[in-house]
Formats: sequence, C-alpha cells, structure tokens
Amino acid sequence: MNPLLEIFSQGEEITRGQIADTNAAWLSQQAVQIGFTVTRHTAVGDKLDDLVALLQEIAQRADCCLCTGGLGPTSDDLTAEAVAKAFDLPLVFDAIAFMQMKQFFANRNRTMPESNTKQALLPKGAQRLDNSLGTAPGFALKYQRCWFAFMPGVPSEMRQMYLEKILPSLPNRFDLHPERLVTLKTIGLGESVIQERIAAVVIPSEVQLGFRAAEDVQIKLLFPFAYPETAIRHLVDEIAEQLGDCVFAIDGLGEETGDLVATIDKLMTQGRHTLAVLETASQGLLAAKCIGTEWLLSASYEQSLIRVKGKFSIADTSDDLTIIAKTIAWQLQQQQNVDFALVQLYGEDRVTLLDKDKSIVVHSLMLAGDQYYHAVHTISGTVQRKQKQAALMSLDALRRCFFNPDR
Amino acid sequence: MNPLLEIFSQGEEITRGQIADTNAAWLSQQAVQIGFTVTRHTAVGDKLDDLVALLQEIAQRADCCLCTGGLGPTSDDLTAEAVAKAFDLPLVFDAIAFMQMKQFFANRNRTMPESNTKQALLPKGAQRLDNSLGTAPGFALKYQRCWFAFMPGVPSEMRQMYLEKILPSLPNRFDLHPERLVTLKTIGLGESVIQERIAAVVIPSEVQLGFRAAEDVQIKLLFPFAYPETAIRHLVDEIAEQLGDCVFAIDGLGEETGDLVATIDKLMTQGRHTLAVLETASQGLLAAKCIGTEWLLSASYEQSLIRVKGKFSIADTSDDLTIIAKTIAWQLQQQQNVDFALVQLYGEDRVTLLDKDKSIVVHSLMLAGDQYYHAVHTISGTVQRKQKQAALMSLDALRRCFFNPDR
Repeated sequence: MNPLLEIFSQGEEITRGQIADTNAAWLSQQAVQIGFTVTRHTAVGDKLDDLVALLQEIAQRADCCLCTGGLGPTSDDLTAEAVAKAFDLPLVFDAIAFMQMKQFFANRNRTMPESNTKQALLPKGAQRLDNSLGTAPGFALKYQRCWFAFMPGVPSEMRQMYLEKILPSLPNRFDLHPERLVTLKTIGLGESVIQERIAAVVIPSEVQLGFRAAEDVQIKLLFPFAYPETAIRHLVDEIAEQLGDCVFAIDGLGEETGDLVATIDKLMTQGRHTLAVLETASQGLLAAKCIGTEWLLSASYEQSLIRVKGKFSIADTSDDLTIIAKTIAWQLQQQQNVDFALVQLYGEDRVTLLDKDKSIVVHSLMLAGDQYYHAVHTISGTVQRKQKQAALMSLDALRRCFFNPDR
Repeated sequence: MNPLLEIFSQGEEITRGQIADTNAAWLSQQAVQIGFTVTRHTAVGDKLDDLVALLQEIAQRADCCLCTGGLGPTSDDLTAEAVAKAFDLPLVFDAIAFMQMKQFFANRNRTMPESNTKQALLPKGAQRLDNSLGTAPGFALKYQRCWFAFMPGVPSEMRQMYLEKILPSLPNRFDLHPERLVTLKTIGLGESVIQERIAAVVIPSEVQLGFRAAEDVQIKLLFPFAYPETAIRHLVDEIAEQLGDCVFAIDGLGEETGDLVATIDKLMTQGRHTLAVLETASQGLLAAKCIGTEWLLSASYEQSLIRVKGKFSIADTSDDLTIIAKTIAWQLQQQQNVDFALVQLYGEDRVTLLDKDKSIVVHSLMLAGDQYYHAVHTISGTVQRKQKQAALMSLDALRRCFFNPDR
C-alpha cells in the first residue's frame, strides 16, 4: 500500500476565498507522481487553536504531510508557534537561518526589519530547509506517525524548496511504488454514453477507472506499480476502440499531449495547412483558443445570419444552412488564400441564443482542399455555454476532417 | 460571533491535484460576504470511509457546511451514500428528481442512461435542490450542529444552485452580521502605483484595506457591520478621486456592477451604439468577451499587418500605425454600417509576439461618430498574456472614448 500523504495550507486568504489553493494542487500532482496516495487537503486560517488541533489530527492519520504558508514575519504567521504547541517542542533560535536572512536583505541593500527575526525561530530538533528565493526558511520534522515538511506560501518559493530540498529525500524516507496513470481525452460524447460504451470492456479489478468532465471528457485508468506494459497498451487500445474517433489524445503512454487545440496544431503544422474561419455562435472564442498557432490566418464574426448573407452575397431567400456554409467556405478559401476554411452557422434567432432554456443547432462545415466535412450539434444552456461548446464542436470538426472527409 | 462555516469538496481530481479547488474559493468569498466566518476547507477523494469520517467531524464543529462534488452518475460519485452512512439515514427514491432528470434528457432528444437513476436517490428527510443546468440534483439537511448543503462539482451548476437555491435561505437559517465590502475596480494602473496614490488618504483603523490584481486591479475596503453609510461614501469618494478615470466600476454601494464589458455594455446600450472591430494581438478574445451584448455586430482578426493592409487596400509602404488604424476605422464604419469602430494594431513581427521576453506596442483606435480616441500600451509576457492584455486595453479604449474623445 502507498504511504498516505496530506496537504495542509495555512492562510486567511485561502479560507476567505481570495485565492484558490493552487499550491495544494501542484504538490498533490507531484506526490501522486512519485507514489503517494493523497488522502486529504485541508486549509485553515490564522487561528492558533485550529492549527494546533489540525496538526495533531494529521500526525495520527498520515505518513507524510506537505504544509504551505504561515512562515512569514507578521503576527498572523503562526506555523512555527502552532507546531511547537501541537508537538510540545520549544522554539529555538537558528543562527544559520538568521544569517541567511540578514544576507538576503544585505544583497538587496536593505536592513532586515526587526519583525523578521521571528522567522529564525524553529521548533527544537526540526531540520531547517533553506529558502533560496525568499526570507522564510522552511523546516521538517517527524511527530508520531507523520513526517511534516513546512514550506512558504509564495508559490515560486514553495516549488523551489520542494524540488530542491524535499523531493530528493522522499525516496529514502518512504517505500514508494508509483502507480501509472493513462488518460484518454475525448470530445463529442457525454460521460454516461462513454460509460455505456466502455461497459463492454473487462477492466481488471486492480485497475482504477475514473472520469473527469470539463471541456473534454477524460477517461482515467490508474494501473498499479509495475503493471505489465503490454497489458496497459492492450486495455487502452480496447477502450479507445469503443470510443472511436471521439478520442483526440492519450496521455501517459510516453508522449505528452495537450488539449484539443494542441492536437489540431500538430495535424495542421505537419500538413503545412492554413485556415480561415467564420464564427457565429462562438463569437471569436474559436480564434482566441488558437492563439500562438501559425496556421490561423484570418477569422471573422458576424452577429446575424442576415449580415453573414450580406457579407458573402448570398440571396436572402436562401435558407439551407449546409448550402450556405459550403458557399461561404469556398469563398473564404479563395479570398483568404488558404487551403482550409471552417464555417460555423446557426439558424435560430438571437432571442433563442440568449435564452438558457432554448437550444440552437450549430453547423460546422470544413472545406479541406476539395473535401467537405460537415457536423451538426444541438447546444443548450446559457449564451456563455453555447459559445464555449460551439467553439469546441467547430474545432472538433476541423480535427475530424483529417480522418472522415465526406464529399 | 459569526456562524462558522466549512467548505467540503469531494473528488480525486482535487486530492490528486488535477484541478485546483476553485469552487472552494468562490463559495468562501460568497459566505464571507454575507457574514460567515470560514474556518476550514477540506477536500477528500473517493474513499467512502474518509468521506463518512469527515462528515461526522464537520457535523460537530461547524454551523454550516457547503459541499461540492460526488453527485454524478458514476461509481466514484459517493456523496449521497456517504451522507446516508455518516448520518444513519436510508437513501430514498425522489420521484420529482427522477422526472426532472428524464426531462433534462428528453429536452435534448436523448434517452436517460440507466446509470443516472442513482442520482434520484437522496438521504431520507433531505431537501432536494433542483439543478437547472445539469442532471444531478443537490440536497440539504441538518445533522447535529451543522446544516449541510450538497452541490454538484461542475462550477457553473454549483454556482447557479448556490445563488438560486441556497443563498436566499441562509439569512433565515443563521444570524448573520455581514461586514460591508466595497470594491473599486480599476484598469490601467499597477498595484504599486495605486498604493502610492492612495497613501494620501487617511483610512480609519477599523477599515481593512486590501488589493487584488487579476485582469483588473481591485481595491477592497472592508467596513465593520453597521458602519455609517455617509462615512463609507466619503472614504470611497476620496479614494476614487485619487484614481480618476482608471476606476471603471464600484461594487458594494448598492448597485451591482460587473466586469469591464458590463460597464461598456451599459454605455453602449444607453447610447444605442453599434460596433465593428478589427483585432490583431487579442485574436478574437475581445469579441469573445462581448458575448451576449447587442451592439457588437461584426469582428475580424488578421494574423499579420501585411494581411491587414491587403484587406483594407492600404499601401505596403505605409507604416504609421495611427494613420493606418484611422483609415481602417473609417472603412469599417462605412462597410459595416455601424457608428463605432475599434481597430487594434501592433507593428512587431510574430516572433516578438510569441517571445515571452519581448514586448509589443498595441495601438487601440476608436472612432465614435466623427471623434477619434487613441491609446497606446506596451504589453509583455507570454503570448497568452499579451492576448488578454490587448483585449482588455482595447476594450478600455472603447470605454474611455465616452469620456475623453480627442479629435
């Protein structure tokens, strides 16, 4: 069994919600990667009693605890004091920590304020963790079951301290057998449909199956330490087959992938393609998501179908969206001097677009060279949701045209 | 004393660090605003025993607990089961929840998968919280000292449920004495410049001053419960005066404001104006941010200045960006049949745009009727940061043209 690890964050700015606890997320990823099971994150504010009680709880519950925040010079920085009280240790003056802090200020031609002195007080017996970026030293100590490491709350200082001073020592302290995570990233299917399709695949009981639905839906497979590579590949292939071309990327098989745009970027760059886009429902968001890529040369947005028709000289009486989209795609390809053109249209009026209880039907038409690919999606929800989904679905049409042209 | 509130999040994607717990931050902000003291955030994964133990702890420690996640249809969604076990309540079938879920799928012309049925099982005696955006209903119940509300983990669904179903009931359940928060939202000045300007204003010791730098820079003033209204107004006016037209909105004086686009929306809608845009560095993001507004009729993006010149028939030799932008704005106004036109240009090459160590100089030119307003900003950082800042600065030029036209 993996050693159990908890994350503990101190700071009113977290409990009051002024910032999200990104330190906890980063440290957890690091810990999972090397073979810990992260069981809990806890954040508390600046109340000494809360801190003391929490440290005592964790000391009995976890094998390792990574802690951030509360090491600063001000009166609401209580970590060392809380540790001293919780574990019944006196605070002792660390002369080396004090000298390092003096040096930090001297290097910046500043005198160290009196209040910083308290940062040199560490619980007796704790190992000092030097801070190469700021003033607050961290420290580490074992109490009861748990080895605690205390780091600053400033993300850059925390990360540096973790990577330099803590990570290298963890394999010696703990018996680590990292699990292997494989993530299949899909687009175009809901979570429950995916589950139904996957139901046909036998997943060994030692493999954990999970889902995460954000913009894409991710299927996560967690394999135990030293699970045979061929068995991993076989299971991933079986699942990918059930989901067909809805899978746009797979993480954890060696190659690092990214989001949908990263997948498209690879295809477009390899083929040296160029693209022009007309957006409607996604209103610029599709173009915005392609920031940093080389192949999107031109994009435009028009608020209404009437304006679209006017711009591309299409008769007002024309109302077949597929034909209109094909006409526009062809014009874009010529006018913008690109080989790929992507046109997004919907036929509903603006009231429907803005009404969260009504849906719109979005047509995404790709013209790739002389091949067309056409996709139709019904999208509901707030106008913001419609915008995001329309951008994603049209981008996905761009991806799929590489595999499924229909003439 | 304020009632004590805890935040509880369920999900391996949080404990494993795949996402930061932004739900916890958002809910904490909401709770603090209305007069709770938030004492603790806890996140646990998909282990039933951990969930049960935690719910029992919180029931003794807090007056209110806002919970997110674990309400989905899959086997790792354990919240209802954990509540049933922790508080010794049977799960009962909620026919109304079931019907709503059926309707959700029917509205989308889909059959409800079998697996969703489990979402209609709620702990006996719990109050159902309808989910107007997704399938999972939430629920609320009191156990021992604590009133628990369970919401979905999807942020949009969670927020809607909190605002519609939970927030309105809290003042009846708890004795709340909220502090009063006033937020001045500014754009165009850095945090340290703002601090220097504000230094001239005397801030009473019982008023807490804070800053938050995100897209805009916000100055936050926290007044104790029942602080005199005239004293609040006086202090806010004094600070606003120091910051001039960099302040685009003030929250907490009665009227709800929104972001920069909301401020612009008001001005544009009142004047019945219409707008056409040409974007370059912001690549569609400016248009995307205006989603849902009536006045943005047309927007376009071109990757390079050469393409821009080609599109608007401007001589290749022409290189004064101000003159080019004026020419384009005038053309947009005519071609697109709008009274306002906004043109964004930068002169650097693409390598500079993509280099995080180099900066670009972005020109934002507004033509409002026959009045021009011109703003120039130097923007540095990653291409993503340049994109965001360019969108904001050009939008701010649109706002400022209402106050400072220059001919």
